[in-house]
Amino acid sequence: MKRIGLLGCGAIGTQIALAIDSGKIPATLTHVYDTKRSQADNLVSKLKLKPEVVANSHLLSSNPVDLVVEAASQDAVRKDAVSILQNKKDLMIMSAGALLDQSVFEVISDACKDFGKTVYLPSGAIAGLDVLKAVKDELESVVLVTTKNPASLKDAPFFDSSDIDPEKISEPTVLFDGKAKEAVSLFPKNINVAALLSLVGLGSENTSVRVVADPNTNKNTHHIEANGKFGKLTITVENVPDPTNPKTSRLATLSAIELLRQICTKEVQIGT
Amino acid sequence: MKRIGLLGCGAIGTQIALAIDSGKIPATLTHVYDTKRSQADNLVSKLKLKPEVVANSHLLSSNPVDLVVEAASQDAVRKDAVSILQNKKDLMIMSAGALLDQSVFEVISDACKDFGKTVYLPSGAIAGLDVLKAVKDELESVVLVTTKNPASLKDAPFFDSSDIDPEKISEPTVLFDGKAKEAVSLFPKNINVAALLSLVGLGSENTSVRVVADPNTNKNTHHIEANGKFGKLTITVENVPDPTNPKTSRLATLSAIELLRQICTKEVQIGT
Repeated sequence: MKRIGLLGCGAIGTQIALAIDSGKIPATLTHVYDTKRSQADNLVSKLKLKPEVVANSHLLSSNPVDLVVEAASQDAVRKDAVSILQNKKDLMIMSAGALLDQSVFEVISDACKDFGKTVYLPSGAIAGLDVLKAVKDELESVVLVTTKNPASLKDAPFFDSSDIDPEKISEPTVLFDGKAKEAVSLFPKNINVAALLSLVGLGSENTSVRVVADPNTNKNTHHIEANGKFGKLTITVENVPDPTNPKTSRLATLSAIELLRQICTKEVQIGT
Repeated sequence: MKRIGLLGCGAIGTQIALAIDSGKIPATLTHVYDTKRSQADNLVSKLKLKPEVVANSHLLSSNPVDLVVEAASQDAVRKDAVSILQNKKDLMIMSAGALLDQSVFEVISDACKDFGKTVYLPSGAIAGLDVLKAVKDELESVVLVTTKNPASLKDAPFFDSSDIDPEKISEPTVLFDGKAKEAVSLFPKNINVAALLSLVGLGSENTSVRVVADPNTNKNTHHIEANGKFGKLTITVENVPDPTNPKTSRLATLSAIELLRQICTKEVQIGT
């Protein structure tokens, strides 16, 4: 059974830990770390099988774990990913946005090859990465339209330099229409989906992103259109927010749990 | 570098072999087999690095290969899958329809666990298996609508017991509206997509399938709607037929090549 180290004990980390503890993911959670010690202790208190709380992130991968799950932050990816791979551990990354920085992506990608390890990124709150990966070489366009309630977007830096007051949006309003690369800094908390699409497809300079604030919705909706020699792909995912963490879609957590389950299982694995 | 054995040297097997030979898939094709020896010889003649043509399918997995790719037929899956796993080789299956037979699925699934090996099924001509896998436990409905030109459907057993003459269809016509389980015998050559959806989701007795013949299209279009506690997923994939094998979608071949590439690579792997 694979031994898992968990980096980040917030809402998503907790749900992953509970999925391991319940046996849904056939693995053992052996070590956990959070920059807030109390958050790690709080997580451990909820588990039947108690993992060790380590004193720093380096101790996660210097211990005999097989895979580290990052559920912390883009900063944690920048700071810890390479040393985890150097320590010959596989790594699952939740904060996919960190990889939009080309230099970060390259150093992590090189570390995978150099140390023979794999970095896994779950599909998050979208569908269709299976197709985009397969047709990457012949994609012509990828457009993402993300629609959320203004309340889910109001903390975004976008509003610092905009005349739009998120509290006063009364009808569906296009906040941003540009490339994924620009969207990163304006909507950093909402960028994981755009990051995943950019990484599998045309890159952040050639992936179009539109962000719509719609006061009439309580869903996080991602609509994707992709064209190429293979044909045409159109996807709409209407996501219910995660009850334990409304900023995240429930699907993003479920997707991470499923990917980890697959990694830990010898079985019939369906999907590219 | 992983060593690959190829079972089936038809159109899809040939494209996979060429992708290995060109270096797109970082692996070595060491052994090939086809029930028609001439087909295997023909494939080998197209390759720079010549694999050995073996005399029967058993010799594929008794030789020191790491993974066998089945690109032959549902019969080949029924006949050879378990012995490949028993020989401690991983297996990639193209003829996913074979696994709709519950007894076949179970014996293969058990063999994966017993022998510690993995069976991989590419996403084929559809998208969104990543989501369906993740929300499997809370799916409420999955509906597939497949639309093809009547010429792509005309060999189906469906027409043996139908008054509809595929040559005379002059407008979009619903040929079948039922469950995936019934669709298998009526449209066996078109069943891979319905099989994949059934396997990841609600099973073949609870997955709805509609087959539409549309004389105005030259695409193979799959439209999927899925609902559950996570939210709602809507996907449309309009597939260009594969130029080397018009009965297959180009995406199905590309998807298989991408999955095999991932299996053979240590890298950043994106998607659940």
